[in-house]
Amino acid sequence: MPSREPPETRLRYRRFTTVTTRWMDNDLFGHVNNVVYHAYIDTVVCNFYMDRSDIDITGSLVIPVAAETHCSFKQSIKHPAVIEAGIRADHIGNRSLRMGVGLFLTGEQEARAAGYIHHVFVDRVTNQPVPIPATIRRAAQAVAPVANAK
Amino acid sequence: MPSREPPETRLRYRRFTTVTTRWMDNDLFGHVNNVVYHAYIDTVVCNFYMDRSDIDITGSLVIPVAAETHCSFKQSIKHPAVIEAGIRADHIGNRSLRMGVGLFLTGEQEARAAGYIHHVFVDRVTNQPVPIPATIRRAAQAVAPVANAK
Amino acid sequence: MPSREPPETRLRYRRFTTVTTRWMDNDLFGHVNNVVYHAYIDTVVCNFYMDRSDIDITGSLVIPVAAETHCSFKQSIKHPAVIEAGIRADHIGNRSLRMGVGLFLTGEQEARAAGYIHHVFVDRVTNQPVPIPATIRRAAQAVAPVANAK
Amino acid sequence: MPSREPPETRLRYRRFTTVTTRWMDNDLFGHVNNVVYHAYIDTVVCNFYMDRSDIDITGSLVIPVAAETHCSFKQSIKHPAVIEAGIRADHIGNRSLRMGVGLFLTGEQEARAAGYIHHVFVDRVTNQPVPIPATIRRAAQAVAPVANAK
Repeated sequence: MPSREPPETRLRYRRFTTVTTRWMDNDLFGHVNNVVYHAYIDTVVCNFYMDRSDIDITGSLVIPVAAETHCSFKQSIKHPAVIEAGIRADHIGNRSLRMGVGLFLTGEQEARAAGYIHHVFVDRVTNQPVPIPATIRRAAQAVAPVANAK
Repeated sequence: MPSREPPETRLRYRRFTTVTTRWMDNDLFGHVNNVVYHAYIDTVVCNFYMDRSDIDITGSLVIPVAAETHCSFKQSIKHPAVIEAGIRADHIGNRSLRMGVGLFLTGEQEARAAGYIHHVFVDRVTNQPVPIPATIRRAAQAVAPVANAK
Repeated sequence: MPSREPPETRLRYRRFTTVTTRWMDNDLFGHVNNVVYHAYIDTVVCNFYMDRSDIDITGSLVIPVAAETHCSFKQSIKHPAVIEAGIRADHIGNRSLRMGVGLFLTGEQEARAAGYIHHVFVDRVTNQPVPIPATIRRAAQAVAPVANAK
Repeated sequence: MPSREPPETRLRYRRFTTVTTRWMDNDLFGHVNNVVYHAYIDTVVCNFYMDRSDIDITGSLVIPVAAETHCSFKQSIKHPAVIEAGIRADHIGNRSLRMGVGLFLTGEQEARAAGYIHHVFVDRVTNQPVPIPATIRRAAQAVAPVANAK
């Protein structure tokens, strides 16, 4: 069986936004296909960068490039659903950022699924790693887990 | 920086199939979006089950449900591309199977990206875990890494 | 050039709901890919059936099957965007329904894109056309254009 | 019922390429979701431009922008499937091109689905319509229906 981490409760996330599902998110098994959760996570994290910093990554010189993505599934979600997505900064490096996202249904304390995207920031033209833009770093720090806390 | 595993070379995979990209796989940054790699992995693994066993998971009573998915990105892929996808069984449990997939471009020895999907097999109706169907288990064993080998 | 229809203004739609875009909706050209508009339309129409009738088409015996889909694009949309989607019943037949959807940005009177999905209702098991379920028909009638009006 | 056109047989198309389905293309109803057919059409047409001309539209100054897209569905397709996609130039204008695509299963004469994408060619920077690039025009002419033929 897959590794069992502590349950991903709402307390482990620092900000919440809303994700809406689409009809075609459901696959033949009648639930949202596993791939689509990564689209939710990708969107939540990219929106976070744009909403919480002065960087519009759709046009900026420095862009986040995925180095690693992960998702753990506890219970399925089925369209139609409104998902409450919690976000936190799992790890803040010099040039990379691991952003964690938990996907919750209304009224539930434990995430249906939780994952992360590990972004490296690169120069759009040279494709070389560069420092995390300052306002994105500050935004990430604001959603980092409190030090020495559970 | 994300954890650095040994390079995912072709030698680490046991069977290869072909994946074709789609125009919309490219995102605004001009390369295949990270989410789409999971669609490639999902398809390669589900096709493997169907091609190499007597189980048609589109209609069977026992179905694979994703418990965990992961992808590491080394170098980007851009549509149009024909991807050579290698598959192996990373772990064969009683009721779960972790299938690894490496995504290679023609003539390249190192995977552009590599990931896995950890499936739990469940009864489609009760949603309870059940043993891996025998012919899927045999198919997985046939692509397991050789014991005590690199 | 493509055929030029009268502009699709908000007045031509009877109900509005909200659609949110995803990061990967943008393609390499920096705008939402044309395919994704059909996902918006598909979702708006299927949600309408479920919200406005007593039929949960995810599990019902009678289901809508697409016979024809169409979209006209006037001006591009770029993620991130919140889209106000208007819906109307273009044509109500015995066993089929053509639902029109207009996609608007906040504060704009003219749709960025407008399309339709022509659904035939079929028996999920036999795949044979059947009458539109009564509560879906009533829901459609409630968003039909007013007779003899512009 | 939707308008009934003459059957879209293989004879009506001039070139064929292959499209492969993905697991998540199937929706909850057990068949490829209507939206995904547009992804097939989009990919077939964009690949045609790139394969048959000297223009790499992923980086060129002149790009095709969708003005209208359409698909008619005759019979469903279910993953896994290898689709034989026929292409033709329905209409060749000065600055726009309507490319038709038929989607066939092996051994079948009639398309499961057929649609088109009407592209306007624009300057990537100014977004203004420009003449169809010469090599794309020639490629389109090579797949235009023969004049005065059925």
